[in-house]
Amino acid sequence: MQQLSVRHLLGIKEITPQDIQLIFETADQFKEVLNRPIKKVPSLRDVTIANVFFENSTRTKLSFELAEKRLSADVINFSASGSSVKKGETLLDTVNNILSMKVDMIVMRHSSPGAPHFLSRKIQANIVNAGDGTHEHPTQALLDSFSIRQKLGEVAGKKIAIIGDITHSRVALSNIFALQMQGAEVAVCGPPTLLPKHIGDLGVKIFWNVREALQWCDVANVLRIQLERQQGKLFPSLREYALYFGINKKMLDELDKEIVLMHPGPINRGVELTSDAADSHHSIILDQVENGVAIRMAVLYLLASKG
Amino acid sequence: MQQLSVRHLLGIKEITPQDIQLIFETADQFKEVLNRPIKKVPSLRDVTIANVFFENSTRTKLSFELAEKRLSADVINFSASGSSVKKGETLLDTVNNILSMKVDMIVMRHSSPGAPHFLSRKIQANIVNAGDGTHEHPTQALLDSFSIRQKLGEVAGKKIAIIGDITHSRVALSNIFALQMQGAEVAVCGPPTLLPKHIGDLGVKIFWNVREALQWCDVANVLRIQLERQQGKLFPSLREYALYFGINKKMLDELDKEIVLMHPGPINRGVELTSDAADSHHSIILDQVENGVAIRMAVLYLLASKG
Amino acid sequence: MQQLSVRHLLGIKEITPQDIQLIFETADQFKEVLNRPIKKVPSLRDVTIANVFFENSTRTKLSFELAEKRLSADVINFSASGSSVKKGETLLDTVNNILSMKVDMIVMRHSSPGAPHFLSRKIQANIVNAGDGTHEHPTQALLDSFSIRQKLGEVAGKKIAIIGDITHSRVALSNIFALQMQGAEVAVCGPPTLLPKHIGDLGVKIFWNVREALQWCDVANVLRIQLERQQGKLFPSLREYALYFGINKKMLDELDKEIVLMHPGPINRGVELTSDAADSHHSIILDQVENGVAIRMAVLYLLASKG
Repeated sequence: MQQLSVRHLLGIKEITPQDIQLIFETADQFKEVLNRPIKKVPSLRDVTIANVFFENSTRTKLSFELAEKRLSADVINFSASGSSVKKGETLLDTVNNILSMKVDMIVMRHSSPGAPHFLSRKIQANIVNAGDGTHEHPTQALLDSFSIRQKLGEVAGKKIAIIGDITHSRVALSNIFALQMQGAEVAVCGPPTLLPKHIGDLGVKIFWNVREALQWCDVANVLRIQLERQQGKLFPSLREYALYFGINKKMLDELDKEIVLMHPGPINRGVELTSDAADSHHSIILDQVENGVAIRMAVLYLLASKG
Repeated sequence: MQQLSVRHLLGIKEITPQDIQLIFETADQFKEVLNRPIKKVPSLRDVTIANVFFENSTRTKLSFELAEKRLSADVINFSASGSSVKKGETLLDTVNNILSMKVDMIVMRHSSPGAPHFLSRKIQANIVNAGDGTHEHPTQALLDSFSIRQKLGEVAGKKIAIIGDITHSRVALSNIFALQMQGAEVAVCGPPTLLPKHIGDLGVKIFWNVREALQWCDVANVLRIQLERQQGKLFPSLREYALYFGINKKMLDELDKEIVLMHPGPINRGVELTSDAADSHHSIILDQVENGVAIRMAVLYLLASKG
Repeated sequence: MQQLSVRHLLGIKEITPQDIQLIFETADQFKEVLNRPIKKVPSLRDVTIANVFFENSTRTKLSFELAEKRLSADVINFSASGSSVKKGETLLDTVNNILSMKVDMIVMRHSSPGAPHFLSRKIQANIVNAGDGTHEHPTQALLDSFSIRQKLGEVAGKKIAIIGDITHSRVALSNIFALQMQGAEVAVCGPPTLLPKHIGDLGVKIFWNVREALQWCDVANVLRIQLERQQGKLFPSLREYALYFGINKKMLDELDKEIVLMHPGPINRGVELTSDAADSHHSIILDQVENGVAIRMAVLYLLASKG
């Protein structure tokens, strides 16, 4: 059996194009399973997985939990609210405690960039990064690429524009790494205040005008304006953001080509996307959610077989 | 096999007397299961059910969760606190996301009347309304009728008084629909400020005096005074409410007939019921809780077989 | 098969030395199970256990939940936050409701000392006390003794010093009972403001100087300074506490004997223990966590067989 080059999925940066290929082929098989009446496989029976979420999450946690249950794993959930974390325990102590209870894999979300990388040097269990601060969110990038591959046949040679708040987005960074590794061209687009200063160093094109970005790309991956992360008044108002960077169906229909619209969710309808755009035939937003379960099954399955 | 006339359980208003009959007969069988040493059946193996609670609940959620597990379903829980709902996502987006992960049934509680009805026009999965605002709470009404039937042999021809805060109660409305559909006579009783203005239009008797209501009825279904729903000072004080509408054991013992005491819980002991009444031989309050699991198993089982 | 002398595990005070022995021998067997690739046994299949936590907890709840799942029990979780408890329901009503849903065992944490004892006189299901206020925490004491037995061969004749906040600690009280019952000598050590006035009546030695306590004992069980329980300024500052009662590796290394270091977690690193002490070869802190799952499996298994 083919194997991943890594024992953990910390970030896209740490894996190879061959790893991505293997994950996609494994996910293809699990997608078939998910479309059967019996959606479960016994692959991870007797494997215990702890979902350790130091930051709130709904869709990512639900997606991992479903993936784990479809694989017949034993699942335990640990969330920071009401936990010993609030009592001042260190991250390493918390995780070591969980591991002492004989847990095989850790799926972790943490607000500090690098938290899962730090842990991976200290503990034996496999770690899957489910988002570390504004750093990486590798399973999101994998499911995004997988969805593009499903829609357009392949990722190589395609032009993808990531539009919105690039600075605060772990989704953006992981996507840039994943797409470039697969031979796609990547651009970012947003108001200058939401683009990191040195983003050009990553080899991405930069657009400040959303219509130009749409004209250029095959796929528009529109990010959520994360209101909760923006203390600093990085744009005048939501209304103004929607006016200059919001995308509606008319803008997509008027392009003289096919375009694929993506969004990692949850959508602020009327801000970064209008409802008619989000629900249009251009959109593969719900396919992304569906593919998320298959991708996470593939990642968990492949890491488990690395022991 | 007999089937329900509906694909969703949105409210009692949407179902027929035959549906109620079928649910009761199915619940009879599940009650037997629950009294065996092995309390589980494989009926919903490979069916995934999401409990989507936008409003807090303990007993209803626990009862559904147990019903689902007894049926061997795969269960995922989604609660609004700490979820993308707080990030401004629409109800339809949230539910579509959950469904994209290949969920077969949705059990939903929501603070807006009509929320599950709205969803049922948009999505494919079966929906069970576990309470929508002050509108309906159909499984509660079904388990209430089922408990009366168990205690008194049948519901038809019986006189049921619903006592307390009728205006803010989805339990009252669903009970009125269910009881009348089965041929019972229904009265409501409470202070005028807690009775809806046009409640008489539903064909119910009205009592403002609790002793007269008790004199009239075979079954007193006493509702909880929902402190958390009453901003508007609808009665002077809890002490005064207890004095005029509270029920104690002596009042029940002094009746020259048998009477059955019900309460959907949680009880405010000393407000709508004294402890000696709640714990008396008149009370079937804990039978209601027990029957709740069997009724919910029956509903989930019958809806699942409608695909 | 041997049986416990009790139907509930309310506290160490209610059980016998033979019970402790039986629990340890059963835990020995479950520890073997936990070290196999297949960590599950079907012992409690078709037994439903409710974890009813009126107080927040992470590690204890996780440990019980894992123990239950390893035994193949059906598990339901009930936590006070967002529950009917907040709506003013009594403890007995809440638990009776849960039991009416056909639950076989209750694992309960409650802030009131004696809460599980009160319940045990009212209900049929087996109860495990997972901590009642500042009173008892019997499974913690059992796993502590079990860890000492594993490390030192036996508990009888050993000298154990419990160091820190004795007044607010249910761990201390349960440990004193358990250790004395097994023939160990027990001392407590802490600032006078954190030692109960009549603690000497329990037959324990008292130290006000931590170096003297360490000199005396074979095992130092260091308690957490529970900041959240101390309104009354019982010591001047954390820094001062660390200075006079904190333990570092050097203090342990300089003893002219072997010493075993324990802590029930979560550790305040830098307060009651320095990091170099907690992570030293003296420490069996993570063994305690590991043993917790085996001990809880043993307790649940043995109580279930008492019906």
